[in-house]
Order: sequence, then structure tokens, then C-alpha cells
Amino acid sequence: MTLLNILSRPRPIVAIVAIALLPAAAFLAWPSVAHAAGVDPETRFVLNTFAFLIWGALVMWMCAGFTMLEAGSVRTKNASMICLKNIGLYSIAGLAFYFIGYNLMYNDVWHVIGVPDNLHGPSDSEKALVAGDDSVLSAVLENGYSVMSDWFFQMVFVATAASIVSGTLAERVNMWAFFVFTLLLAALIYPIVGAWTWGGGWLAALGFQDFAGSTIVHSTGGWAALAGVMVVGPRLGKFRRDGTVRPTPPSNVVLVTLGIFILWLGWFGFNGGSQLALGSAADAVAIGHVLVNTNLAAAAGVVAALSISRPVLGRIDLLTCLNGALAGLVSITAGPDFVEHYWAVIIGAIGGVICTFGIKMLEKLRLDDVVGAVPVHLFAGIWGTLAVCIVAGGNVLVQLAGIASIGVFVFGVSWLLWRALALTPLGARVSRQVEELGQDAAELGMESYPEFVLMPEMMDDEE
Amino acid sequence: MTLLNILSRPRPIVAIVAIALLPAAAFLAWPSVAHAAGVDPETRFVLNTFAFLIWGALVMWMCAGFTMLEAGSVRTKNASMICLKNIGLYSIAGLAFYFIGYNLMYNDVWHVIGVPDNLHGPSDSEKALVAGDDSVLSAVLENGYSVMSDWFFQMVFVATAASIVSGTLAERVNMWAFFVFTLLLAALIYPIVGAWTWGGGWLAALGFQDFAGSTIVHSTGGWAALAGVMVVGPRLGKFRRDGTVRPTPPSNVVLVTLGIFILWLGWFGFNGGSQLALGSAADAVAIGHVLVNTNLAAAAGVVAALSISRPVLGRIDLLTCLNGALAGLVSITAGPDFVEHYWAVIIGAIGGVICTFGIKMLEKLRLDDVVGAVPVHLFAGIWGTLAVCIVAGGNVLVQLAGIASIGVFVFGVSWLLWRALALTPLGARVSRQVEELGQDAAELGMESYPEFVLMPEMMDDEE
Amino acid sequence: MTLLNILSRPRPIVAIVAIALLPAAAFLAWPSVAHAAGVDPETRFVLNTFAFLIWGALVMWMCAGFTMLEAGSVRTKNASMICLKNIGLYSIAGLAFYFIGYNLMYNDVWHVIGVPDNLHGPSDSEKALVAGDDSVLSAVLENGYSVMSDWFFQMVFVATAASIVSGTLAERVNMWAFFVFTLLLAALIYPIVGAWTWGGGWLAALGFQDFAGSTIVHSTGGWAALAGVMVVGPRLGKFRRDGTVRPTPPSNVVLVTLGIFILWLGWFGFNGGSQLALGSAADAVAIGHVLVNTNLAAAAGVVAALSISRPVLGRIDLLTCLNGALAGLVSITAGPDFVEHYWAVIIGAIGGVICTFGIKMLEKLRLDDVVGAVPVHLFAGIWGTLAVCIVAGGNVLVQLAGIASIGVFVFGVSWLLWRALALTPLGARVSRQVEELGQDAAELGMESYPEFVLMPEMMDDEE
Repeated sequence: MTLLNILSRPRPIVAIVAIALLPAAAFLAWPSVAHAAGVDPETRFVLNTFAFLIWGALVMWMCAGFTMLEAGSVRTKNASMICLKNIGLYSIAGLAFYFIGYNLMYNDVWHVIGVPDNLHGPSDSEKALVAGDDSVLSAVLENGYSVMSDWFFQMVFVATAASIVSGTLAERVNMWAFFVFTLLLAALIYPIVGAWTWGGGWLAALGFQDFAGSTIVHSTGGWAALAGVMVVGPRLGKFRRDGTVRPTPPSNVVLVTLGIFILWLGWFGFNGGSQLALGSAADAVAIGHVLVNTNLAAAAGVVAALSISRPVLGRIDLLTCLNGALAGLVSITAGPDFVEHYWAVIIGAIGGVICTFGIKMLEKLRLDDVVGAVPVHLFAGIWGTLAVCIVAGGNVLVQLAGIASIGVFVFGVSWLLWRALALTPLGARVSRQVEELGQDAAELGMESYPEFVLMPEMMDDEE
Repeated sequence: MTLLNILSRPRPIVAIVAIALLPAAAFLAWPSVAHAAGVDPETRFVLNTFAFLIWGALVMWMCAGFTMLEAGSVRTKNASMICLKNIGLYSIAGLAFYFIGYNLMYNDVWHVIGVPDNLHGPSDSEKALVAGDDSVLSAVLENGYSVMSDWFFQMVFVATAASIVSGTLAERVNMWAFFVFTLLLAALIYPIVGAWTWGGGWLAALGFQDFAGSTIVHSTGGWAALAGVMVVGPRLGKFRRDGTVRPTPPSNVVLVTLGIFILWLGWFGFNGGSQLALGSAADAVAIGHVLVNTNLAAAAGVVAALSISRPVLGRIDLLTCLNGALAGLVSITAGPDFVEHYWAVIIGAIGGVICTFGIKMLEKLRLDDVVGAVPVHLFAGIWGTLAVCIVAGGNVLVQLAGIASIGVFVFGVSWLLWRALALTPLGARVSRQVEELGQDAAELGMESYPEFVLMPEMMDDEE
Repeated sequence: MTLLNILSRPRPIVAIVAIALLPAAAFLAWPSVAHAAGVDPETRFVLNTFAFLIWGALVMWMCAGFTMLEAGSVRTKNASMICLKNIGLYSIAGLAFYFIGYNLMYNDVWHVIGVPDNLHGPSDSEKALVAGDDSVLSAVLENGYSVMSDWFFQMVFVATAASIVSGTLAERVNMWAFFVFTLLLAALIYPIVGAWTWGGGWLAALGFQDFAGSTIVHSTGGWAALAGVMVVGPRLGKFRRDGTVRPTPPSNVVLVTLGIFILWLGWFGFNGGSQLALGSAADAVAIGHVLVNTNLAAAAGVVAALSISRPVLGRIDLLTCLNGALAGLVSITAGPDFVEHYWAVIIGAIGGVICTFGIKMLEKLRLDDVVGAVPVHLFAGIWGTLAVCIVAGGNVLVQLAGIASIGVFVFGVSWLLWRALALTPLGARVSRQVEELGQDAAELGMESYPEFVLMPEMMDDEE
């Protein structure tokens, strides 16, 4: 447990020190136990770095998953706008995290926030090494992994948080307002949450545990989405005056399913990479556990949602099952490195149930979350962060403190930000005319499927 | 050849022993040939484990490929049900393999079957290691790879077998019956076949060779699908009374193509990972050969199908070419580790031809296989298992014994199971009314593409 | 810089020698600095080989990206043909590169061209090693990576070049003519360009720098496409007699977006793998830089295209932003291994701008490039090759010499080849009747979306 704790994410600085000490320990141990030398420092460096890059590439792929999920979930008249928002948010979030966010999250943390250094780059010794100066090798190896490989892995996480907001607010949020919000989420809000936790700040000091980000990534995205939906309001006609809810079926169910499979695959990188190392047998074993638990929790989320779908919703519902997979994944994300794998089944199944009821609850509260992102990422994220107390020794008060403080901060700042955006001439929401016509035709001058006969208003019996 | 044989899959127990001996050998060799020490045991452990996880993730991705292939192949009125069946089967198969299947396949094999231990988990020494007890490191390393990384890799294979059944029986099989069948396939049928072979049972003792599962995975799925199609029967109206066959074109050809590309990519994990190791130069070289042969065989399957498409079918046929890729992949799966790569071209091309004629043959037998899974996975699987005799020293009688015994067992048990499911109140097949309306609307209360004007009956000129 | 230069791609032969010397150096250094032994030769071999295979698999995945991009960009009446062309080109290019291309590119280069050896296979020592003869280990390790893993990585690059041609000429090029062109591109044209550069030929001797192929892969594909579009001509009705251009909106925008995400993911393999090694800390650091720069350039391409979209085109344009991502990726491909990452932002943004204006320019020249492949791959490719002079010490005259000589060669040979194909009975272009009806119905006897009501001629107001 100790080794894992040290190497797991809450305190990268401690981890760096620990990793830096390992070569020294290996050196001291060398002469007497040469046969048990273990992974040599340079090999460990290569493996750790490669793991960040490969797992990070899988997490980048999750952006495609969110895009397919959202583009299939909205009405066709807004599908192109969803595509633009998603490729835009990934680009903007990545640039913002490069120019400001990463240093705010990790550098020189005073327990509350990092420093607003501009840019982020390799260490001087790394620059010298790739320029051919081998004398700096040991200085490079001390870091345990390449500086920018860690940046790459952290950057793709930011995009995930932004994607969550996109899905909830689909079909009526103003594109420019959304991009401004994304910029500030990636440059400021998420990095500050990160500075409290993975950056080694006050929540990390308290012992807050969140292995891959049930709270830090998913609930952060979920709170920001919840604030957005409260300010921006529901889609026109979603909630009828008689209190009933108008169904808004996804326009392309197969794309939604493809999105879920992409996210499931990407989550292996999301959780597996959050071990933050691959340079020892202990790391390799732990990553194996992480992937197994991740997969079992998702599978259990599907089966749980399938089982309760008819009693709760009156019919077998595909979308509930798909969201069940995501809820299982979010639930296990806070602590997927335990060894009794049946717990993953239980945690994931409960996540699937929470999400199913959560979707109904939001509808009752007349909050219009197009893809169910708040139940999936926020509700299951809270559950997952608490589940750490059961399986991974988390302290329930500390976990609650983390959930609450991050919730208050992210929700509060996001709410103010959305309100401020609503007051600009641009507004947070498109005009009634644009919404009725669809953002694709009205704002982009295009249709997503121009050759198919569309009947976008076929369900719009009551406006 | 010897090293490869030891490390290749048929006998993991032997392989484990061999891998466990390697560190010892390295230790003995250490003082005198320090410069040729090779991969140290812990690095080897990390590499083997990482390979299982990365290749396994690629195989999981194949589920998305099967889903796209099937959802694009069926009429739109059943596409959502296909999505539900596929995410359901992956979830159910994974849970069944965790709770029962894996131990039945690998633990304590009496040459026929494993033990029905519940659950499967890491070794005690692995638990101690991740809890921080470094003294158990050598005990952990003896296994050669993390226990659960192997489980992960084997688990994704089960899902592949179940996916094959889904495609053949699309558009009329009852969802619950299909899920029950999937459960039993993953918990019992597939693990028993696995116990005979990769689990070290009687077929392995005879010398049966099936590197990544042309027979063990693909033919198993194919036999189960064939039994299913014989019991469940063809779709309504597929075979007209005058003996002609009603064409049922795929509703979304681009999704079918996407599915094939996903499967092609995933197959690099399927075959490459079946080397079961990455911890030595010999393993790395072998995996390189495996990927090259896998790619050449698929390419040759495409070109062969393209070439014979017009003579055999009267027109250039895209779907034949796509199935040709899969048939090439299945054909090479039994023995992709040979060094004369032109044989991969020949084997894959023959697979493509077999599949093309097989699709015609099934139609003549009035067996309605929606996606051509029986020709692709069963016929090409048999061919691939025999092709091992040409390129990888397989004994033709042993290979035939394996093909026949697995065929009789899987087909027989599956047929009985489908018959039993047909006798339940639920039935193995949906009602005529549901089939005509489509499973999406009738059972899920939804449409896959609700905003597009559909003409589901436009080709139904003769019922 | 030296180490990187040696290991970077221009001179594999030099790199092989250098890599082969490293074990020797390690051996000499062993007794005195055992603790700093670094990656042992066999581990290095495994890591280098594995990197080729994993990165190569990601590049193979780019073929799916091109397919989705193109199938979504064309009118539905030609989408199935696009699928067939893409799976066909990947298969044909791979076989051609196996039978002829690779050896022409790398073996026995007289500074101009390789040798037309048939086939390509593992070394004799590799064959012995996998057959169990451990005595050849050091001979195997001398190569630094498995022979066929390099073949695999180079093979997937050929397919990329061929994919570029497919997109430009969509909707009217004859399928057989296209396949013949693909065969010759993969067997002869691309390998000759490769022999001059990565094969160690005269351009490499001059010092031409092209890390992952802005010119060698992307411009080669772009020049071949440009020659094709000049010979084959525009689609019927694309350019009206009054000088106006008829808009041809993509039929499935979400698929186009999916294709872009796939390409972005695959590009991590394209550029990251082009480091050609993973066996040292310097390699790992460099690959990290490559992935970071690749991602930043793509993101900057999106944001730049988004910013200039309204001023230049009169509206926010999703397709411009998607092509901006690709242009950013192509721009950074010639030299992505520098350490001042803000340059990636600048280079990618300029690429996005060039591409946006390039699309307009081609329309003015009445060249009908269906997916904008010439601006994306050729124009941004030239820019990227010149940008190397700014960030990676390239000599501007040498870079210009490389751009020009490859341009003249590829464009000239391609133009002659397309002219020759046009003179065959088959022709380079389908008949007017086929083009009007669509290649799917006319040549494949199928529709891509048969159950959807299509109105393929809805925009064809003026023929």
C-alpha cells in the first residue's frame, strides 16, 4: 500500500522524490545483489515516459468518444455545431493548459494555487540530452519520466472536463460563450482544483484520495455543467406547461453507442495511466488491477442499468444501459487499484443505479441535461469518491471535505461565469430563432446530413 | 522453434515454468557474461504485463468493430437492438469469465476441464507487493507477468466469440435468450474448449496448434452461431417460396466499413498479444512477424475477394471484399508466427476465396447468416487451423482432431441450448409482429435514426 | 542534437550503425560504471521493436480516418465506392510494398534508387533466434530493432500517401485506374522518393530534413493528387459556366469529424514513431516533445482556421476548422522534435491559414479537390518542410531542393501515369452516366444508405 500510495497521484512531488531516490537505492544495492538489480533507472525512465504517452493518446481518443456520443444524442439540426464545439474545446483546452493551466496546477504550489508562469517546457537537462550531451543523463533520469510526457497526460484530462459541459448544454448554448467558458475552465478553474489535490495542495495534505479523478475531473466537469444548465435553461419545449417532459430521442443511436465504446477504451488510459508509472513490477501489477477493475465496473454498470431499466423506466432502455457503462467507469475512477475485484462489480453496479435514478431526478427538477452528463459524471463521481472509503482506506470526512470544497468552488465560479457570459452582448444562449432553426443551418450555414430527408420537427407537437 | 513453441499459447503452465526458469538461468550466467545479461527479470515482467494490457485493450476495441459491422448490416429497424446486444454481451461475457469462466479454463486442469472456483484474483505475493512489501518481489517475478493482466487479455477473447453469434442471429433472436446463451458460452462452453487447449488439456497434450484461436475462438463462435441459425431459423421473407433469396442490403455501409477497420486494428492485438510475452528479443521478433503476417493475410483476403467478386457474384461487391479482410485475418490466426511472409499472402487469399463461396453456399442451404459470420469465422477458421500444417509444422491428424472434437462439442451443446431456450416461455426468437415492426420500436420503444424518413419496407415486395 | 540527428530518420543506415555501436559502447563502459549501465541491449531492442509496432498500428488506424473523412465528404451516391477504394488501397499498397517497394527504398541504395529485390523478410539470425538458437542473439541485437517491425512501420506510411490521392479524386475517378495508380505509387514512385531521403540517397547526403514526412509522404501524396485532378478533371457541374462554383456539402458531417479525430490520434504514431527508437532516455524525451508539438500544432491549426473562417469565407465553417487540424499536423511533421513548444503553435497556426486560403485558391483555379487534400497535404507540407529551417536548423536551400526535386519527379511521373491511364480502354474517369447515377449504384449495384430517402440531386439545380 505504501509504495502505491507514494506513487499514486495525490502528491506528484513526493512521487518525484521517491522515484528519484530509487536509482540511488539501486546503486547502493548493486554490488551485493546484482542479480536482483531490477529495472535500471534509464529503462524505468523510458517505460514511465512511454506509458504517459500511450495512455495519454488513449485519453485524447475519448474526445472522439464524447463527440460521437453528443452528435448522436442531439437532433440532427445541431450535430455539426456539436462537432465544431468538440474539436474546438479540445484545441482551446490544450492551448490554455500549455500557456497557463499546467503551471498553475503544478508549479510552486502554496497549498492553494500554482504560479501563472507562461508556457511549460522540458528541463534544461532534457534539452541538453536531446542536443547530444550525455553528461546530463543522470539529471534527466532523476525526474523519473520526461517532463513533457507528464504534461501531455495531464493535458488530455483537462479536455475531458470540458467535454462534459459540452454535452449537457448542447443545442442551445452559444458557441463563443462556450469557448470562453472552456478557456477559463482549462486555464483557471480546473488547474486550481488540481493544485489543491494532484498539485500537492491543502486537500492532498489532508489525505484526500482521488486516483484518476472521479471528483477532480468528472465532478468538476459535472458541477460546471450543472451551473451552466441552471443559468442557460432548458431547450425550448423540453418541459411542457402541463408538467410533462417532451422526449428528445437521440438522432443517431449507433453513433451514441460508438461513442460509449470509444470512452470505455479510452478509460483504460485514463485510469491505467493515472498510476503515473510503469517502471517497476509493482506498477505493472497495479496497472493490471486498475484495468481489470475499470472493465468490471463498467460491465456491472451496464448490467445494473439493464436490470432496473424496465422497473424504473417502464421499458428496456438502451441509452440507460450506455450511460450505465459510463457511470460504472466514473464510479471506479477514484480508487481503481484495489485487489478484491468483486468490489469493482459492486461499485460499478451502484453507479449504474445512481445514474439511472439521477436522470429521472434531473427531469423532475426541470434541468435539461441533453446527454445525462450530470448524473453520469457528477452523481457517480461523488459516489466513486466515497466508495474509496470502502475499498482503498479513504477517510470519509476527508473525502466529503474534498467533494464539498471542490463542489462549492467549481459550481460557484462556474455559475458566476455563466451569469457574466449571459450579460454580455453575445449572451450565453442562442436566440429563439437560431434554436428553432438549429445551430447548424443558422450559425454554420450547413446541414449535417444534407442529402437525407429530415423531419426535425416531427416530434415538436407542442412548442 | 523450440523457444517459440514453449512461449506460444498452447501450454501456459509450461510457459510459466519456462519463464520462471529464465531468471534463474540469467542469474547463473550473470558473473561471466555480464555484458550479455539480457532483459532483467523485473523489466521482463513489466514488458510482458504491459503487452497483455495494451494488446488486450486493442482486442476490447474489436467489440466496437463488431457493433459497427452489425449495426450497419441490419435494417435500421433493428440497429438499436444490435447496439444493446453488443454492449450487453461484452459486459455479461466479462463478468461471467470473472466469476466462473477463467478458473474453469486454467486452474487445476484434469485434461478436460478446470475447477469452478469462484472469482479470480491476484496472487498473494502480488497483493503483498502492491501493499509495499518488497521482499516478495522475486515470488511475483516468477510468474513472468501479472496474474490479472493475463486475465484481462483472456477475457477480451471470450467477448469475441460471443460477438460472432450476435451477428449471425441479428434481427430475430430474442434479446434475453441471446444474453442467457452468451452467459453460458462465456462461463462454460468457451472455457471448456479453452481447458482442452490453452489450459493445457488433452488437445494440448496431443500437440494441437492454434496460436491465437482460429478454432478455439473463431470456430467456437462460428459453431455456436451455426447451431443458433439452424434452431432460430431465417428472418421472415429472407428465402422466398420460389427458392430465390431476397437481398437484404446493409442499411449503413460506411458503418460496416468502419467496423472492418476497427477489427483489422484490433487483430494486431489479438494475434500479437497471443505471443503472450514481450520480454525478450525473440518475443519481439516473433511479434513483429505476427503483425506482418496478420496484415498481409488481411490484405490478400481483400484482393482475392475483389478479384473473384465479379466472376462469382456477377458484380464488384464491397461487402465481399470487407468479409475477405476478416476471412484473411481469421485464416492467419492459427499460426501467424512464421518467417516466410509470402505464405501469409497465400493463406489469406485462400481464406478470402473460401469465405466468398461460403456465403453463397449458406444461402443455398437456406441458412440466414446476417453478416456472413459463419463463413468468415468458422469456414476460414477451419482453413486456418489446417494451414498451420503447411507453415508451422502442425500435424494434420491432430489439427483435424482438434477441429472435429471442438466442432462436435460446441455445435452439440449450442444446439441443445438453443433448443432449450426455444422451449422456454420466452422463446429463442421474437414474435412475428416484433420482427415485422423491428426490435427497436417493438422492444426498446425507440428508433435508431428517428429524424430520417425511413422506408423499412421498401424492398419488402414479397413477404 | 547529434544523437537526435543520428537517430532521426534521414539515414537509417547510419542509424543502424550507430545503434549497433551502442551495445559495444555499453560493453566497454560496463565494468567501471555498472550503476549507470543504462538500457541493456536486449531491452533496447525490445523497446525499439515494440515502439515500431504500436506506433505503426496507430498509423494503420489513419486509413480508417481517411475513409470516414472521405465517405462523409462525398455525396451519398459515392460513399460505398469510397469505402471500397480505401480498403483496397490499403491492401494493395501493403502488398506492393512487400513485394517490391521496401527493397527499392532501403536496400543497396546508389543514392538514387534501391534494388528491385522481391519480397522482404527477417534476417537469417532472426530466423535462427525464433527457431530457438540463442547463440545468434548478439547478431540480432546489432540491428537495434526487428527487421520486420521496421517494415511494418514503413508500410503504413505508404498507405497514407495513397489515401491522399483517393480523397482528391473522389466521385469520378475510375476504380481500376485508381488501383493501378496506387500499385505503382506504392511499388515505385514513393519508394524512389524514399530512397533519395530516408533510404540514404542523394537528398539525405545533402542534408535534407524531413522528420516524419511533410514532403516525403504528404507532399508526395499531394503532388500525385494534383496531377490526377488536372488530368481527370472536376466533377460534373462543380464549376458552372458563369464562373461560379457549385457547393458540394459533405453528406455526413459527423463522419468527417470522426475521421479527423482518428487522423489526429494516428498522427501521434506517425510522428512519434518516426523517432525510430524508444531504447534510451534521449529517445523517450524526444518522443514526448514530438507528441506535444504535434498536438499543439493541430490545436493551433483549428483555432487559426476558426479565427479567419468568417473574414475569409463569410461564415464560421466547420470543415475549414477540421482541415485546419490536418494542416497543423502536416505542417509540424517535417520537424516536430524541437524544444520550444510555442513554435509548434505558430507553425500549426500558419498551416491552418495556408490551408484555408489554399482551398479558395484551388477553387479559383477550377481544380476540384473533393476533400481539400492538396491544400492540406501539399501546401501545408511545403510550409512544414520550410519551417524546419526556423526551428530545427534546416538549410533553406537544401529544403527547397528537396521540395522541388520531389515535386517535379512525383508530379511529372504521376501526370504521365494518369494520362496513360486515361488512354486505356478503361479510362481514368467513369462515364458521364455512371457519375450522374453515382458509382455505388452504377458500379457496385448497391446504395450506402438504402433505407433512407435520398435526394441526391436536390442541389443539382444547374448541370
